[in-house]
Amino acid sequence: MTMPQPSRTQSTFTPPVPEAKRWIEGVSFPADRPLVNVSQAAPVDPPPAALRRAMAEAMERPETHLYGPVLGLPALREALARHWSAHYDATVRADNIAITAGCNQAFAATLAAIAGEGDEVLLPTPWYFNHKMWLDMQGVRSIPLPTDDRLLPRAETARALITERTRAIVLVSPNNPGGVEYPAETLAELYDLARQHGLKLIVDETYKDFDSRSGAPHDLLSREGHEETLIQLYSFSKAYRLTGHRVGAIVAAPSLLQEIEKFQDTVAICAPQLGQIAALWGLENLAQWVAGERDEILARGRAISEQFPKLAAKGWKLKGLGAYFAYVEHPFAESSDVLGRRLVHEAGVLALPGTMFMPEDDADGARHFRFAFANLDAAGITTLFDRLSALDWPLAGADAPA
Amino acid sequence: MTMPQPSRTQSTFTPPVPEAKRWIEGVSFPADRPLVNVSQAAPVDPPPAALRRAMAEAMERPETHLYGPVLGLPALREALARHWSAHYDATVRADNIAITAGCNQAFAATLAAIAGEGDEVLLPTPWYFNHKMWLDMQGVRSIPLPTDDRLLPRAETARALITERTRAIVLVSPNNPGGVEYPAETLAELYDLARQHGLKLIVDETYKDFDSRSGAPHDLLSREGHEETLIQLYSFSKAYRLTGHRVGAIVAAPSLLQEIEKFQDTVAICAPQLGQIAALWGLENLAQWVAGERDEILARGRAISEQFPKLAAKGWKLKGLGAYFAYVEHPFAESSDVLGRRLVHEAGVLALPGTMFMPEDDADGARHFRFAFANLDAAGITTLFDRLSALDWPLAGADAPA
Repeated sequence: MTMPQPSRTQSTFTPPVPEAKRWIEGVSFPADRPLVNVSQAAPVDPPPAALRRAMAEAMERPETHLYGPVLGLPALREALARHWSAHYDATVRADNIAITAGCNQAFAATLAAIAGEGDEVLLPTPWYFNHKMWLDMQGVRSIPLPTDDRLLPRAETARALITERTRAIVLVSPNNPGGVEYPAETLAELYDLARQHGLKLIVDETYKDFDSRSGAPHDLLSREGHEETLIQLYSFSKAYRLTGHRVGAIVAAPSLLQEIEKFQDTVAICAPQLGQIAALWGLENLAQWVAGERDEILARGRAISEQFPKLAAKGWKLKGLGAYFAYVEHPFAESSDVLGRRLVHEAGVLALPGTMFMPEDDADGARHFRFAFANLDAAGITTLFDRLSALDWPLAGADAPA
Repeated sequence: MTMPQPSRTQSTFTPPVPEAKRWIEGVSFPADRPLVNVSQAAPVDPPPAALRRAMAEAMERPETHLYGPVLGLPALREALARHWSAHYDATVRADNIAITAGCNQAFAATLAAIAGEGDEVLLPTPWYFNHKMWLDMQGVRSIPLPTDDRLLPRAETARALITERTRAIVLVSPNNPGGVEYPAETLAELYDLARQHGLKLIVDETYKDFDSRSGAPHDLLSREGHEETLIQLYSFSKAYRLTGHRVGAIVAAPSLLQEIEKFQDTVAICAPQLGQIAALWGLENLAQWVAGERDEILARGRAISEQFPKLAAKGWKLKGLGAYFAYVEHPFAESSDVLGRRLVHEAGVLALPGTMFMPEDDADGARHFRFAFANLDAAGITTLFDRLSALDWPLAGADAPA
């Protein structure tokens, strides 16, 4: 027998979040110097009490425990369609909505519906590693799309990378890991480019509820024929603190959702019913509460800005800031991949290195860290920055590679 | 631009269960002649009250709402390992267990870890359609493995189908759709064959809790080095009536589960926490209750046997019976694919035609139906058989294709 080819999973890398969790396994942190964990983009507090009560009450409704429709509970699809229509000042119907078991699954299902073996997708760098991993496992080539000095992808750069195998451009806004909120013009120019080339423009809007801008972040849903081009992805996990319940969504053409139904039926059967019931309750009852959550996240972002000079004085640079994330350049000689492990032991900090968000052959990842700061209040940010500014590691010298 | 190749979803068919649900959309059934739905293998009653209370109480534990480890809650992995060790009289450890969002996902994750584009997998026919769909979407060829007159796959038949691209033999026991419980010797001979050829033997044991035999259904876990060959899949959905909560499992080598972690991180992040908490509670508290559920399902199976002569007199044949399923041959001239739709209107019965479980080019599917009878008590079975035996459709004549 010949050597077998790699399996789908063998064609990609170890998942970064579990990998980083292994860095802290068995490490003890003193009570007066606890771990500052800025590795994962997830709320650590439970949902509000009224939502928890609604979820507990749902246990006595038989349908909570049964399979539901593959594409989601009709009432949730309708409620999200209303929410989306209002937020984007556009007309979105229930049959434009599919509910998935989280936004990662929304991405996987979408890609399965639009691409096959050997196809290509443009991903701005730094990228979201789970997008890259899924594309690897599906035999779809991730084409890195370099961003500008504000971490924004540009249509002229993207245009040069399009081939006849290109199927989509994938954007995340507000961006993970970069934190940057894509301006409406950036989305519009990439939408126009996608449309001209018959590609899909996939916009992952997981962090939309924490955008600092009020109103719709773009007008793409108002464009004539947008369903041929635009696909939006969403997560209920962050807004309502439902990460453990796995519920996300896809907003797209009904014909595409029919294709997606095949994938969802096979990988999920349906999204968990309780998560869907909770998301529906949230849409109907938690708008004002979410506004308060957004205020708090934005305040934490401002605290990052205000306190950053302390790090800047040590040579750090703030490259992007928004939603849950700060993307920062460190001043040290060593790669962030090595320093990430050292941070655990020497600073009591867990953060993901930029190498986890960049192609292996791009040295830029070695210079950066992502801080997922949603769980750090202003005092926590002070602690984080104090510990980082105390590091006396060798600096990248003038003669070291930049 | 050239015509793009099909996307992954375009390479497979419409999912059968949602398709069948569309057959009854907008159809009204008289109150004195309600729909008899034997289309889906799922309990329709909620979990027992004590489990519902435990689930409601879990809403006040913060971790219920947070992301958990990709491969599952440690306590659930340990509890299932203990259960598995006892049931199979073998040593299974927590690191042999991965928890997934349902058993379909367990299959998808497993295949991603062992096969790539152009590889082949042997599937006994009739097959479980979601297995076939996933393989289609992954670019893996499903090689139909014909079964004998008892619906059992045989090693000598399988051996002739193995090529250098074959990666696995996939079994479902007790079988969906065939209902047949695979004898230990059948599993043993296919295990030996897989081992000789360096293949994986995947055994989907979703219906293990409803096996009519007491004790372990096979001794494969006692074989030296079985981890190199054997992979078992399981679902908590049927035993504890948790279909809406999406929780299943994989029992395999820790090294394989490391590969599977990549897939799960990307498609699921983690199985829903509440489903995992409920499954753990079930393992710890519901053994006797599940025994009662099994008794009831076995009684329903006996009612099928006892009442079948009424259908046999009209030319129907019972091909397989066990767990939730009866696989039956009908006596009519038309294909089951056409008759399945007519059954809705003319008999008030929803059942999946054999065509949904067979390769398109195999005429055998047209002769069969699957009855998923778990929700029919003896009276319901009487109603079903009365309606079917009243059908006066044209019979397959001596001169019609058999």
